[in-house]
Amino acid sequence: MQSGEEIKAKVAKAVEDVRAQNPMAPSITNTVTIEFVANAQLAVGGSAAMVYLPDEGEAMAAAGKSLYINMGTLLPVYAETLPRTARRLCELKRPWVLDPVGIGIGGLRSELLKSFADKRPGIIRGNASEIIALASLWGIGSGQKSTVRGVDATDSVLQAKEDAKALARHTGGAVAVSGPEDFVTDGETSLLISGGSSFMPMITGAGCSLGGVMAIYACVADPFTAAVTGSCIYKFAGKSAHSKCRGPASFRTEFIDALYNATSQDVASNPFKLDIFGGK
Amino acid sequence: MQSGEEIKAKVAKAVEDVRAQNPMAPSITNTVTIEFVANAQLAVGGSAAMVYLPDEGEAMAAAGKSLYINMGTLLPVYAETLPRTARRLCELKRPWVLDPVGIGIGGLRSELLKSFADKRPGIIRGNASEIIALASLWGIGSGQKSTVRGVDATDSVLQAKEDAKALARHTGGAVAVSGPEDFVTDGETSLLISGGSSFMPMITGAGCSLGGVMAIYACVADPFTAAVTGSCIYKFAGKSAHSKCRGPASFRTEFIDALYNATSQDVASNPFKLDIFGGK
Amino acid sequence: MQSGEEIKAKVAKAVEDVRAQNPMAPSITNTVTIEFVANAQLAVGGSAAMVYLPDEGEAMAAAGKSLYINMGTLLPVYAETLPRTARRLCELKRPWVLDPVGIGIGGLRSELLKSFADKRPGIIRGNASEIIALASLWGIGSGQKSTVRGVDATDSVLQAKEDAKALARHTGGAVAVSGPEDFVTDGETSLLISGGSSFMPMITGAGCSLGGVMAIYACVADPFTAAVTGSCIYKFAGKSAHSKCRGPASFRTEFIDALYNATSQDVASNPFKLDIFGGK
Repeated sequence: MQSGEEIKAKVAKAVEDVRAQNPMAPSITNTVTIEFVANAQLAVGGSAAMVYLPDEGEAMAAAGKSLYINMGTLLPVYAETLPRTARRLCELKRPWVLDPVGIGIGGLRSELLKSFADKRPGIIRGNASEIIALASLWGIGSGQKSTVRGVDATDSVLQAKEDAKALARHTGGAVAVSGPEDFVTDGETSLLISGGSSFMPMITGAGCSLGGVMAIYACVADPFTAAVTGSCIYKFAGKSAHSKCRGPASFRTEFIDALYNATSQDVASNPFKLDIFGGK
Repeated sequence: MQSGEEIKAKVAKAVEDVRAQNPMAPSITNTVTIEFVANAQLAVGGSAAMVYLPDEGEAMAAAGKSLYINMGTLLPVYAETLPRTARRLCELKRPWVLDPVGIGIGGLRSELLKSFADKRPGIIRGNASEIIALASLWGIGSGQKSTVRGVDATDSVLQAKEDAKALARHTGGAVAVSGPEDFVTDGETSLLISGGSSFMPMITGAGCSLGGVMAIYACVADPFTAAVTGSCIYKFAGKSAHSKCRGPASFRTEFIDALYNATSQDVASNPFKLDIFGGK
Repeated sequence: MQSGEEIKAKVAKAVEDVRAQNPMAPSITNTVTIEFVANAQLAVGGSAAMVYLPDEGEAMAAAGKSLYINMGTLLPVYAETLPRTARRLCELKRPWVLDPVGIGIGGLRSELLKSFADKRPGIIRGNASEIIALASLWGIGSGQKSTVRGVDATDSVLQAKEDAKALARHTGGAVAVSGPEDFVTDGETSLLISGGSSFMPMITGAGCSLGGVMAIYACVADPFTAAVTGSCIYKFAGKSAHSKCRGPASFRTEFIDALYNATSQDVASNPFKLDIFGGK
């Protein structure tokens, strides 16, 4: 298990390496928040490229060191694009990011999500209900029943802890559960990351864009560090923006500006605690 | 016919009930303004979920108490998704919202819009030209010729009054005509709602997001009240934002913040007048 | 070759004519920045309409005096929509705008871009790497190898000058190379346009929306004037926004507001120099 100081040092380095290297993490993502994903990736110092077609997904799997797959608004072509892209990502051992948003809606979504069980996403990011539902879909869950409503969580982050750890052990990567506090685990070391703002769930795409930003950090750091760095910069920027805004739209503007202005020390100093006892 | 005081009381209650209940109104909507629709729905206290696939449209018809269908940027899959979703909405007697944007462009759009004539949308929202064109397409119009240009109205709100009433009588729901003043009718009671801002038509999606917000209110109120509440909060927030902005982009930010900050009394006090004489 | 004073007078007139006539330039464009394209077109005084379907592309080719085609996020239907729309644009001699973003990614994109070689786009707009790659794809390039990375340029604007001129001579229209300085040429007269902001590449869609705005100006002016006017208003608004912002998101808001508030004299006075010697 890593120490808090080790983690902070890695987080600071990830922030700086992205700013220095401007890595590209392509996305196959939903049409609702696709611009927010791109702008957040640019704000932290990365580069974005979004595609839909099967051969373009494969090309992007090779072109980027990581890639973000968000299941939000499936189109018919995803039935071919996502399996081919995921297969290529797996072959290339890319630490890709999976966002199982909308899990439970429609047949194609369940089928695709099931097929990812052996595709080793480096990071899985979702809200508590999505993480519980994915662990259940992959047959490795704690047996609790999640209650996703559309794209909203109805379970608490703490309820998802054991399922998050099970998913991380299954993939060998990291799992991030987003909520008032974010829970990030690699199955061994687990963190609870605080900060943020009550406006985060009031703007669409706070979660999606976090997944895209984690993919940027996964270009320069191991999946656990990438997930923690993404959560820390989001919690820091959210808290910073909260104090300056007058509602959700000005919050969104301040938030992206804060992502851009955050120093590596700001991010590494965002409060988190090691989840040592593992209790619920 | 309802009195102004009765309407105000219902409007105030709709604003409060949405804030208390956080209802979800899913959307099948265009890719241009899809994020604005979601953020406006969140700002008034609702929840958003967007889909494209046929079985997902049906699932969402069942999952939400209302649903928003916007015809903006049709994709091939809409040929299957919209009829199946509309059929399910009709079976479930959901007060869904139809936004016939782009009416007149392309064959599929006309075919789909025709097929909705017996699907009883609870609310139809459009600009004057779209409302006139839809009444004509359904064979219940006053016989005037509308002149839609792309997504722009070239007719005045007052010109669309009789066609709006005819549509409302046909569906048994409400019809909202957006413009410098909004006209909302259930075929019997009609209102002219003032306020707003000359910046409204300068930002894409002012109309679409209003349709999405009406769907949120339709989860807690009858269609006429939902349409009036949507128009009132938009006119109030538009006027409020106008005084604080320096151009269309800062207007958009202030507008969404104003949706979030509007109290039920702010919304219920937005000026409207009963259209008693029914003259043009 | 035109003089600087002649060009300035035409630029000022284009800005004013758009504000007076509110021309519509429809788009077939990517889902990432589609809202930004529309809002930028509205901010300069134009009207926007976005479509995906083949018959709608053809209808829009006829409905607008110009049309914007951006290759960003191809969907399967583009295989039919883009050829049919481009053919119609060519038949109608519309000065349409081509944005070859993502050139090099995937098979369909290359095939479509090749097919545009005889479709005479009035304006081609891209970053340096995209312009070099397109000239090479059309077999009229200087033989240098471009190195597009996703949607990012890795070549300098000056490196693309000769290929831009070759493309302009081939189409008989104008070519605009976006970068820290924009290079605009009709193959005979060439300009370097300065101003702008280091935040421009930090917001997704700065280039796409510029293409959309050039299409608006192409409704009222010749392609070269339209491209120069688009570049000048972008450089002016970018510089103006830079001094007021605190990061990329507030820059984006200030930028769109500045597009809206720019006077014809502001735009015509934006610094440019005639590229007389043609050296690299």
